[in-house]
Amino acid sequence: MSALPLPLTIREIDAHGFERAWPVFRDVVARGDTYAYAPDITLDEARALWTTSPARCFVAERGAQVVGLYLLKPNQPGLGDHIANAGFMVAAEARGQGIASTLCTHAMAQARAAGFTAMQFNYVVASNTGAIALWQRHGFDIVGRVPGAFRHAALGPTDILVMHRTL
Amino acid sequence: MSALPLPLTIREIDAHGFERAWPVFRDVVARGDTYAYAPDITLDEARALWTTSPARCFVAERGAQVVGLYLLKPNQPGLGDHIANAGFMVAAEARGQGIASTLCTHAMAQARAAGFTAMQFNYVVASNTGAIALWQRHGFDIVGRVPGAFRHAALGPTDILVMHRTL
Repeated sequence: MSALPLPLTIREIDAHGFERAWPVFRDVVARGDTYAYAPDITLDEARALWTTSPARCFVAERGAQVVGLYLLKPNQPGLGDHIANAGFMVAAEARGQGIASTLCTHAMAQARAAGFTAMQFNYVVASNTGAIALWQRHGFDIVGRVPGAFRHAALGPTDILVMHRTL
Repeated sequence: MSALPLPLTIREIDAHGFERAWPVFRDVVARGDTYAYAPDITLDEARALWTTSPARCFVAERGAQVVGLYLLKPNQPGLGDHIANAGFMVAAEARGQGIASTLCTHAMAQARAAGFTAMQFNYVVASNTGAIALWQRHGFDIVGRVPGAFRHAALGPTDILVMHRTL
C-alpha cells in the first residue's frame, strides 16, 4: 500500500515563518543558476528581502515540508506600484510536480486581489528554458533581454529576460 | 559686462551632503514625469535610496548651487553586480546646458573605475524622448519595453524602456 501524496497548501508567512522556508531558499540560491543573490546570502538578508513590507512571502507546503515559496511585491514605488513583481523557488526534490505553476497561479490571484494590474519579472535567466516556457504558458511575454547580465555558475555570462503580463 | 558662467564641478557626496541636492531631487520627482518615486517622497527616504551603500551619489555644482545629481549602484546583488545602474536628475533651471550628458560621461567613468562591465537603466520613461536620444548618443541601446509601467502625471499610463550598454 503506497501513501497518498499530501495535498499542497499555500499560505502567507511573516518574518518569523521565513525560517522554515530558508532551506529551500538557500539551496536554490547556492546553485547559482537562477537568482542573482550572492550564493552565500544569510538567512537574515534573505528574510529581510522577502518579508519586509511591501514584500510578501508565501510558502507551499506538503504536510510540514516547505516545497516552494514565492515573493510578491510592487515592482516599483510610487507611480510604478501598479505592477507587481514576483519570484518563485521550488525545492530540488519537488521539481516536476507542477508546484511552480500552482504558485504562479496563486501569485497572480493574490496580485489581482491586492489591486495590481500587471505582473513583471525583471530577472528570468535565459538558460532557464523550463521556467520561461512555464511563464509563457501563464500568459507572460518576453518584453526585454539584457545581454550577459547574469554570471551563471556553470554557463558564465548569460542573458536576462524581462517578462510581463497584464492581470 | 556679463558674468562668466561658473565651471561645473562634479563630486561624490555622503548622506549628510544629500541635503544640498534634495531641492533638485524633490522638484524632479514632484513633476511625476520621469521617476516612479512617490511625488511626496521625504528627504530621509530619498537620502537612504541614493546614499546608502552600495548606492553612491554624485552632485554637479556651479559655485554653491547644485544643478544636478546622479546615482550609481550595482543593478543587482551577487551574480548580477557586474552591471551598474544609474539615475540622473538636472535642475529645471539648468536644462539645455549639457549637464545630463556630462553626468552620464562621469558616471560611466566612475562605473568603469569601480569594475562594472556594463550599465543598465531599468526605468526610462518612453515619453522622455530627449533623455532617450541622449542615452543613445552615449551608446545605450533599448533592450526592453514594458507597457504602461509608469503612471505619468500628465500622460497617464506610459511605457518604460530598459536601456543598456557595455563599458
